[in-house]
Amino acid sequence: MGASESLTILNKFLQFPSISTQPEHKGDMLACAEWLKGCCEDWGLDAEVYPTEGHPVVVARYGNDLDKKTVLIYGHYDVQPPEPLEEWETPPFEPSEREGRIYARGSSDNKGQILAHLLGVAQALKEEGSLPVNVVFLIEGEEEIGSPSLEKFMEAHREILRCDVIVISDTEMVAPGVPTVTYGLRGITALEFKVTGPSHDLHSGSYGGAVMNPATAVARLIASLHDGEGRVAVPGFYEDVRPIQDWEKEAQAQIEGFEDDLKKTAGVDTLFGEKGFSPIEQIGARPTAEVNGMGGGYQGEGTKTVLPKSAFAKLTFRLVPDQDPEKILDLVEAHLRTHLPKGVALEVERGHSGKAFLGDPQTPYGQSAVRAMEKVFPHPAVFIRAGGSIPIVDSFQHIFGVDVLLLGLANSDCLAHAPNENFLIENFMQGIRLNQVLLREIGED
Amino acid sequence: MGASESLTILNKFLQFPSISTQPEHKGDMLACAEWLKGCCEDWGLDAEVYPTEGHPVVVARYGNDLDKKTVLIYGHYDVQPPEPLEEWETPPFEPSEREGRIYARGSSDNKGQILAHLLGVAQALKEEGSLPVNVVFLIEGEEEIGSPSLEKFMEAHREILRCDVIVISDTEMVAPGVPTVTYGLRGITALEFKVTGPSHDLHSGSYGGAVMNPATAVARLIASLHDGEGRVAVPGFYEDVRPIQDWEKEAQAQIEGFEDDLKKTAGVDTLFGEKGFSPIEQIGARPTAEVNGMGGGYQGEGTKTVLPKSAFAKLTFRLVPDQDPEKILDLVEAHLRTHLPKGVALEVERGHSGKAFLGDPQTPYGQSAVRAMEKVFPHPAVFIRAGGSIPIVDSFQHIFGVDVLLLGLANSDCLAHAPNENFLIENFMQGIRLNQVLLREIGED
Repeated sequence: MGASESLTILNKFLQFPSISTQPEHKGDMLACAEWLKGCCEDWGLDAEVYPTEGHPVVVARYGNDLDKKTVLIYGHYDVQPPEPLEEWETPPFEPSEREGRIYARGSSDNKGQILAHLLGVAQALKEEGSLPVNVVFLIEGEEEIGSPSLEKFMEAHREILRCDVIVISDTEMVAPGVPTVTYGLRGITALEFKVTGPSHDLHSGSYGGAVMNPATAVARLIASLHDGEGRVAVPGFYEDVRPIQDWEKEAQAQIEGFEDDLKKTAGVDTLFGEKGFSPIEQIGARPTAEVNGMGGGYQGEGTKTVLPKSAFAKLTFRLVPDQDPEKILDLVEAHLRTHLPKGVALEVERGHSGKAFLGDPQTPYGQSAVRAMEKVFPHPAVFIRAGGSIPIVDSFQHIFGVDVLLLGLANSDCLAHAPNENFLIENFMQGIRLNQVLLREIGED
Repeated sequence: MGASESLTILNKFLQFPSISTQPEHKGDMLACAEWLKGCCEDWGLDAEVYPTEGHPVVVARYGNDLDKKTVLIYGHYDVQPPEPLEEWETPPFEPSEREGRIYARGSSDNKGQILAHLLGVAQALKEEGSLPVNVVFLIEGEEEIGSPSLEKFMEAHREILRCDVIVISDTEMVAPGVPTVTYGLRGITALEFKVTGPSHDLHSGSYGGAVMNPATAVARLIASLHDGEGRVAVPGFYEDVRPIQDWEKEAQAQIEGFEDDLKKTAGVDTLFGEKGFSPIEQIGARPTAEVNGMGGGYQGEGTKTVLPKSAFAKLTFRLVPDQDPEKILDLVEAHLRTHLPKGVALEVERGHSGKAFLGDPQTPYGQSAVRAMEKVFPHPAVFIRAGGSIPIVDSFQHIFGVDVLLLGLANSDCLAHAPNENFLIENFMQGIRLNQVLLREIGED
């Protein structure tokens, strides 16, 4: 299978608007899963689409040799919503190749990365007729909404998913050509709150001054989440936070240009975060409280002098070991209720949650991964804790009790979750090779 | 002209979606103005539609007798945007009669009220062939966006607008059947601000913790506008506020049930406002800072874990004598810049402004108005300062140097600026009578 054929398949994969959070895309989700199954079968894998209470899971398998190790490769075919659409240079579900990158929603998160592994296996089978290991692909459709069905699915299908090691490429490389082993991920928990006041939008002249404004109340609640030094001000929030180890500080000190790269890819001049921690620590090893969205009142053109009847905010909290998502939500909800101004009411809706992950890159499988990565990307590997969350990784560790290797292929300026998401074609091609080298390293170990 | 014919004309008037702030309704604005002109001509008035830099002004005139007094009656044919549309029980521009009320955008603010005066004159001319005074109707199309063209128009057409007294019905009655003389109005000034940070929406995992979140920044800026006791916390904000007079406190103490009515019409259990002032004072005689709208990040269904690139808020400030709108905006802008968190930028756009109005209800014209109102509504008149703003009233006082009488006809639960705006049909009918009685009182004085 040549580069051009691989790109054609990626293009097809990226055309499915497989947006798991938007109910109107349920049909697209199923179509995408069925298409994946068909591809896997064409490549010589046994594949199945399993329904769940939410979106289906695709499982594809090669080999059942008890003398070989079994590698489970996890990925997801669902993507984030593409909005705001007007900020895309080319439409999010019409992949466009420009300057060595493929632009499309899901190109790096995660279709491009999981497809690199699939194509690595497909190519090896085509060229050599067999693999040095058994492989199970587990590709879900609910990663972007917190994998609500996957844990139950894994419990129910333990047998077919049994494995010796788990490989995931759903993270970033710190810089082009620098092999990056992600040994930690933050957890996440979500909470949406709505403040309601008057029974209808009020004339801000006839009522303003004597009636509490729900938009003001929402703003105060958001403002109450942090102190002036970037710390989360929710009482008890840091209680269970595991401190950063000395070896981690040393490993991170060896990563060059992280701060400059962060500024550049974010498009900001000045960083701002929790006092006393470096940006790499703030992102990888410290928890956060972020507003992902807020709204209230009149947002159209011009002025509308209303005192809105309600306003809302969507919050997520990135967590680190050993914070418990439910405990954090309890603390946050109590905090919001304490700070709620008089004259308005608060409605809280809890969202999806996942615990943080912290692996050990020094295990034998970890060392196999480092060797494979350094063969494909000729540069010493770096070790980082990533700020993002793949909540299911914690479940993998607990259900299967095996090492989880996070071998990121995404470029650090991939714009995951943002308009103009992209994936370096070079990384896609190297990813295909990495899969083959890695499976050999594991098979020979 | 009978009640049914009057209602038919009101229905027609209310069907024009004359939304001055939305450019797509420019044609509807002109059509509404031309329709008004045609009606006035049918009723025996000389009418003209004058173009302005914005929406046109309608002037309609009866009489030019130098021995008679001239009454200028001001109103506006533009309306607030109807959004949120889904909260209307019947469509905003399809007037619906239910339980003695007409429901439609603009029914009380201001089409119903100005039409009552027009129909009063039309009916008097039909029945008696003449009026006891000269009348000039000045009906603009930009009241809801701060009357940007009207002052210039009045300066340029001083001659045709010359008058002895100005009458405006664009305020509310404190309770059904209670004649309400509004001797004060708050001023207003508007400011929209936008906080920008990253060049694009960021993944809240990969960047959250080290990059300032613009939505958080907007929330903090909004929160910084008030202290815990309902006072506006912008330094210097209260510097020029004229204290409430003793006679006003006495007059207000005589108004029964204001607080209960306010709670009921707002649909709230608890009021909240500036400490040390009663609700009637908080609304009529004290300035405010209100968020009319705010937004940032993902507001759709589900979760999108972004750190948004920008967020915004639309603010208006209701002002009292002797606050200067431009000075207030200077203070607010300085305050926002002082409180802006590090790592984000602030863009400020100033909106329309108007000074507060404070009249004297004890002048001879004021007394004529009280007599007329007490004849039509058999209850002692009450005197209040209203919380809303009709910025042009201050200009009337300055340009024409005459008394401005604010004789409200709207019911206090009229839902002006909100979904399901309505006007009591009884008030509409009494308004037609009030016009006739008032013009006689003024003519005979």
